[in-house]
Amino acid sequence: MSILVVGSIALDTVETPFGKAADALGGSATYFSVAASHFTDVKLVGVVGTDFPQEHVKLLKKHNIDTAGLEKQEGKTFRWSGVYEVDMNNRRTLSTDLNVFETFSPKIPKEYLGIQNVFLANIDPSLQYEVLMQVSKKGRPKFVALDTMNLWIQNKKNELIKVLKKVDVLLINESEAKEFAGELNLVKAAKKILALGPKGVVIKKGEYGALYYSKSTMFSASAYPLESVCDPTGAGDSFAGGFVGYIAKSGSLSDKNIRQAVTYGTVMGSFCCQGFSLSKLSKISRADIQKRFQEVKKFTNI
Amino acid sequence: MSILVVGSIALDTVETPFGKAADALGGSATYFSVAASHFTDVKLVGVVGTDFPQEHVKLLKKHNIDTAGLEKQEGKTFRWSGVYEVDMNNRRTLSTDLNVFETFSPKIPKEYLGIQNVFLANIDPSLQYEVLMQVSKKGRPKFVALDTMNLWIQNKKNELIKVLKKVDVLLINESEAKEFAGELNLVKAAKKILALGPKGVVIKKGEYGALYYSKSTMFSASAYPLESVCDPTGAGDSFAGGFVGYIAKSGSLSDKNIRQAVTYGTVMGSFCCQGFSLSKLSKISRADIQKRFQEVKKFTNI
Repeated sequence: MSILVVGSIALDTVETPFGKAADALGGSATYFSVAASHFTDVKLVGVVGTDFPQEHVKLLKKHNIDTAGLEKQEGKTFRWSGVYEVDMNNRRTLSTDLNVFETFSPKIPKEYLGIQNVFLANIDPSLQYEVLMQVSKKGRPKFVALDTMNLWIQNKKNELIKVLKKVDVLLINESEAKEFAGELNLVKAAKKILALGPKGVVIKKGEYGALYYSKSTMFSASAYPLESVCDPTGAGDSFAGGFVGYIAKSGSLSDKNIRQAVTYGTVMGSFCCQGFSLSKLSKISRADIQKRFQEVKKFTNI
Repeated sequence: MSILVVGSIALDTVETPFGKAADALGGSATYFSVAASHFTDVKLVGVVGTDFPQEHVKLLKKHNIDTAGLEKQEGKTFRWSGVYEVDMNNRRTLSTDLNVFETFSPKIPKEYLGIQNVFLANIDPSLQYEVLMQVSKKGRPKFVALDTMNLWIQNKKNELIKVLKKVDVLLINESEAKEFAGELNLVKAAKKILALGPKGVVIKKGEYGALYYSKSTMFSASAYPLESVCDPTGAGDSFAGGFVGYIAKSGSLSDKNIRQAVTYGTVMGSFCCQGFSLSKLSKISRADIQKRFQEVKKFTNI
């Protein structure tokens, strides 16, 4: 079953110890879409400026991503630039120019209403709530997942809590989970988050993998160890693409499926890190993904 | 089969956000011995001062730890004190008084020669080498594991490399592995360490679990997620106790056994963190260990 994703589309300028990419295709919805497109059909809702290169639209279409909801507005595309430090675990934002993204008001094409799987990528939680209301007009989707960031935890906590009551799974970074829950212990933080409403929470730990908590189960996933990390930008959104992509494809929320979905999340996150922008993620095949999934299964087997 | 361990025995004064313990039983060989004693017989070689409380010797004996190699010297026992910060991931050493440990020259009791399993806990690599020469007089042990620390990596690197050529498995912290290999990427660091001679390397990542690398295999172990960490002191040595303990008990270095041994390592490390000094580690039963091992198996199963 297909997935609707709403989020940012950006042109990123990124510098890492391995090189630099200027005005490269980025944004939470973009990474998510390309990663998820390896599993199922994706419908993308977002906004770009008139400067958005046609080749990027082509890339999305090449991945069968439905761009009917890709709005083009007068002005410039959202731009972000940052530098990664030598150990790749810390990054410094150099500039954020929201441009047309500043007044983004997602309009869900009519034909998308009633869609069964929704991913609310990292945008203002008030917009995430509004999107959910729009798509739920013909009945609530079967599966809704949501990502967020420290900016919203700090400035829009109540709005975030409001939308969380409506979602199945929250995806959140380790440090953000601790900040959101006001709790340094991760197990306690996960429990506090679950008490807010979502059925499950995925805590992303970067190179240390991810944890999934629900009221009845817990799953700890190892990350795929990379011998060289080129650019971690978008790894969390690619994780979400693998996670939601597999759930949408399999159509089941069984414990076993959730575990496999989290594992596909770590697999897609690892591919993302192997190239600047979407260079690696857009080149891999389903066989590559399957091979890495089996490798992860093997090296975590006790 | 029994294990010989040579390392430090200390009286620790530790402060964490959860409380304080003064002059409590500590030291690398102590934590290792008590953890490993849940799997097999342990023979402890170390030195204490005349101030070493008899109750601590009693505790060791209660765990069937052979103290024939526990030397008592005129003077004070090695003392360490430190404070853990709120997030428990960083600790500050307040004082280190080596006392009788400063001139420690391990003497292996004759009856221990020919022993099949040896753990060289974190002491000067020159002493580790000397111990290995002593115990190898009647033939090399079947299994030798070694732990070390940043102090030796920085000041006795050549001695460390020399003894590493003689051991089966090196156990090392993540940050120490990177420092030792001069390599920020953990996969590359593991390969560089393997090139120095050991058949395997266990990289301990604290709350993020552990990695095992050999030339032919890789295993990623999750840590047992604790809802409350009381005192992480000795967790690495307890990990080693579970790891070497299980290998000695099972008597096999098969891939499957190594994976289980690493898992028992994370299990014993987690128990250690649940109490000050050896309070938790000395109270658990084999059933408690088995239960946690099965839990780890379950929550990592894809």
